[in-house]
Amino acid sequence: MTRNLAVSAARIAEDISDLAALTEPDRPWTRRSFTPMFRAGREYLARRFQAAGLETRIDAAGNLIGRRPGTEPGAGTIMVGSHSDTVPEGGRFDGVAGVSAALEIARTLADRGIALRHDLEIIDYLAEEVSAFGLSCIGSRGLAGQLTPEMLGREADGRTLAAAIAEMGGEPAALGAPLRTDIKACLELHIEQGTVLEEAHEDIGVVTAIAGITRIEIIVEGRADHAGTTRMGHRRDALAAAARLVLGVEALANAKAEGPTHFTATVGELAIEPNAANVVPARARLLIDARAESRPVMEAFIAEVANLAQSVAAETGCAIDPPVTISDNLPTPGDPDVLQTLDEAATAVGARHRRMASGAGHDTAWMARLARAAMIFIPCEGGRSHTPEEFAETADIALGAEVLLEAVKRLDRELG
Amino acid sequence: MTRNLAVSAARIAEDISDLAALTEPDRPWTRRSFTPMFRAGREYLARRFQAAGLETRIDAAGNLIGRRPGTEPGAGTIMVGSHSDTVPEGGRFDGVAGVSAALEIARTLADRGIALRHDLEIIDYLAEEVSAFGLSCIGSRGLAGQLTPEMLGREADGRTLAAAIAEMGGEPAALGAPLRTDIKACLELHIEQGTVLEEAHEDIGVVTAIAGITRIEIIVEGRADHAGTTRMGHRRDALAAAARLVLGVEALANAKAEGPTHFTATVGELAIEPNAANVVPARARLLIDARAESRPVMEAFIAEVANLAQSVAAETGCAIDPPVTISDNLPTPGDPDVLQTLDEAATAVGARHRRMASGAGHDTAWMARLARAAMIFIPCEGGRSHTPEEFAETADIALGAEVLLEAVKRLDRELG
Repeated sequence: MTRNLAVSAARIAEDISDLAALTEPDRPWTRRSFTPMFRAGREYLARRFQAAGLETRIDAAGNLIGRRPGTEPGAGTIMVGSHSDTVPEGGRFDGVAGVSAALEIARTLADRGIALRHDLEIIDYLAEEVSAFGLSCIGSRGLAGQLTPEMLGREADGRTLAAAIAEMGGEPAALGAPLRTDIKACLELHIEQGTVLEEAHEDIGVVTAIAGITRIEIIVEGRADHAGTTRMGHRRDALAAAARLVLGVEALANAKAEGPTHFTATVGELAIEPNAANVVPARARLLIDARAESRPVMEAFIAEVANLAQSVAAETGCAIDPPVTISDNLPTPGDPDVLQTLDEAATAVGARHRRMASGAGHDTAWMARLARAAMIFIPCEGGRSHTPEEFAETADIALGAEVLLEAVKRLDRELG
Repeated sequence: MTRNLAVSAARIAEDISDLAALTEPDRPWTRRSFTPMFRAGREYLARRFQAAGLETRIDAAGNLIGRRPGTEPGAGTIMVGSHSDTVPEGGRFDGVAGVSAALEIARTLADRGIALRHDLEIIDYLAEEVSAFGLSCIGSRGLAGQLTPEMLGREADGRTLAAAIAEMGGEPAALGAPLRTDIKACLELHIEQGTVLEEAHEDIGVVTAIAGITRIEIIVEGRADHAGTTRMGHRRDALAAAARLVLGVEALANAKAEGPTHFTATVGELAIEPNAANVVPARARLLIDARAESRPVMEAFIAEVANLAQSVAAETGCAIDPPVTISDNLPTPGDPDVLQTLDEAATAVGARHRRMASGAGHDTAWMARLARAAMIFIPCEGGRSHTPEEFAETADIALGAEVLLEAVKRLDRELG
C-alpha cells in the first residue's frame, strides 16, 4: 500500500544502502564497533547529519549526536535514535533502520520548516552489539552513567574499553555518572527481530517492555565410565541428565509462553566432558537464556529450574548443584505516557499497530534510567536478524519514521 | 581366601609394580605405545621373558613374543598374552595383568619342569589402546593380516604408522597377510572393566563373546534464531531435538539391556552450533557408541535409531538425515571348545566362574580371525578402568593365571 507520507522513503533507502556498502567486503554485512569500517560508517552518518542541518558532535560516551535546537531555551531535549554497528555477518537493518528513521525526522522537520519547542537530538549509540569487550550497549550505558570502572578497564585488541571510547572521540574520564539531565523523552525505532507483526499483518509494535534477561548456569557431575563395559542402569551419565534438563526447560518455557506476557527460555550453550565416543559423559555444562516481560514470571521460572535440577539429579544419580544465576537484568517497561503518545501517533498516521513486548535487549532499556523512554517495532521478513538475510521493507521503515515524527510533534506539545 | 596355587602371586605383583614405575612421572599411569616410556616397559618385559627362559623376539607387527618350545616339532603354538601399553592417565592393570599372568604360566612350567607338546608363546601385543594413529589393536590386527595400507600410511608425530612399527622392531613390509598359520589356540586374561564379577562375588568370567561395536553419527539441522525474540513454538531448536535423541537412544538401550545378551548404547559425543547463549542452537552432532553381543540385536537397534531420528525430526521440525553408521564391527564369539576348556579349568582350580560377554574390544577379537581364541576376565574394583583408580587384587590375577595354566595344559593334551 502506498501512503502519502511526510517523510521520504527514498532518503531512508539511500541511508541504508550507503551504510550497507560500508562492510567488510568478504563477509557482508559486518561493521563492528571500534573498527575502521565502523568509523567509516560514523563519518558517513556525520556528513548526513550535517547535511540535515544538525549540530554534530561525539559525546563523552562515544555516541554520535546531531542536534536541532528548539525555540524554547531550557525546555529540554527529545532524543531519537538507534545504533549503526552490526554483529559479524549481520544484517543491514538491525540498528541502522532506527538511525535512518530518526535522521529522516530531522530532515522532514527542516524541509517543512517546522520548529519544535524542545531541542531534538538524533543519536547513533556506540556499540550496541556485543563487542570484543564482551559488553553490549556501551554508548547508552555510558550516557546513563552505568559504565563501571571494571567495564572501562576491560581489555581487547591491546587496549582498554576506556581507550577505545577515547579513540571514537569520547571522553572516558567524564563517565561514571549520568551525562545528561535535560532529556525529556527518548524514542527508538527497531526491526522486530520476530514474526509477531508479520503474521498479524500489522505495521507497528508499540513496545510495552523490554524483557528482562536472566542467564542461569547448571553444572552436571556424572561419572566417566567405559561405554562398552558399564551396564545400562549402572551409569551416572551427565549427558542423559543434561538432556532431561534441556527438555524440562523447554516444557517450563512453553507453559510460560502461553501466558499473557512474553517469555522465552533457551539452552544456547551445552558442552560435555570428556566428549569421547567410548566414555560415558562425566560432566555437562548448560547455560539457559531466559527472557521475561514480567518479573514475577521470571522469578517463578528461576524457582522451577531449581526444582527441575533437583528432580533430574534424583532421577539420574548425577550430582547437580543448585543452578547459578550468573546475570539477571530486570525487565524495562516503556514509559506509560510515551506509550500512549505512540499509540495515538500510530492511529493518527493510519498505521495498524499493537502493543507487544521486546524479547531482545536495546539501548532504550538503558536510556529508561535517564528519561521517559519507549520504542516501536516495524516488521522484518520471517523475523530473521543477525544474519545476512535480515530484511525490512523501506515502506515499513518509512511508515515507522512517520509514526515517530508524529509522536515527536505530540511530545513536543505535551511535555513541559 | 588363600589358595594353594602353582603360580606365584608374588612374581605377578613384582611384574605389575615394576611396570607401574615406568610411567610419565607427573601423570600416572601413562605408558602410551610408541613412546620412550613404552620402550622402557618393553625392555623390562623382554628381560623378564628372557629370565623365564623364553626365546624373545619382536615379530613383524611389533609384538613382543617369548617362546618356550614344545616337545613335538610341528605341533603348533599355544599363544597367551595381552598388552602393556596404557591410555593417558590409565591404570596399572588393564593389559598388564594379562601379560604378567601369561608370563607367570611360562615361569611356573619352567619351575616345575613341565614339558608341553606345543610351543607356548607369551605375547605383549603392540598398541592395543587407541594411539596417536587413531587405531586400536595394532599388533593383533597386524598378526591377523588386518592392517590395511591406509592404516599403515596414517601419520602422527611426523611419521607413518609403518615407520612407527619399524621403530618398535617390526617389519611393516611383511604386513598385509596373516603372519602365522601355526597358532592352535590363543588365550587372554584381562580385568573385567565392569562390575558383574564383583557384584556376584565370582572369580572368573569366561568370555562368551567380545561385543560388536557400532558407531552411528546423527546430524541435526535446526535454525539459528534470536533466543529473545523467537517465540517458543516458532523454533527449530537443534539441541531440543538432540536431547530427544539422547533420551530415545537411552530408552532403546535400556530395553535391549534387559534381554539375555550384553547391550549398551552411549551418546559419548555431542556438540552444538553456534553454542552461543543468545542464539537458538542451529546444528547438533551426536555420536552413538553401541555394543552388542548379538548381531541381530545390533541390527534391530540400528533400525530403531533410524525410526527415532525420523520421529524426532517430525516432532521438532528439524531436518535430520538418516543416521550414518560410520563403523560397524561384528561381535566375536569365543571358540566353543576353548570356552569349554576354560570352564573345566576354572572348575578344576576351584574358581567360582560364570560365562559373560565383553562390552570392550580386545586383541583377542582380532586373534580369533587366525586361531581358536577365547579370554577370561578377573574382577576389578568398582569396574573402574582407564583411570588411575583402576585396581585389581593380586590374588585375583594369580587365580586367573592358575586357570589359564590349567587351560593351557588341557589344550596341550586336547589339541592336535
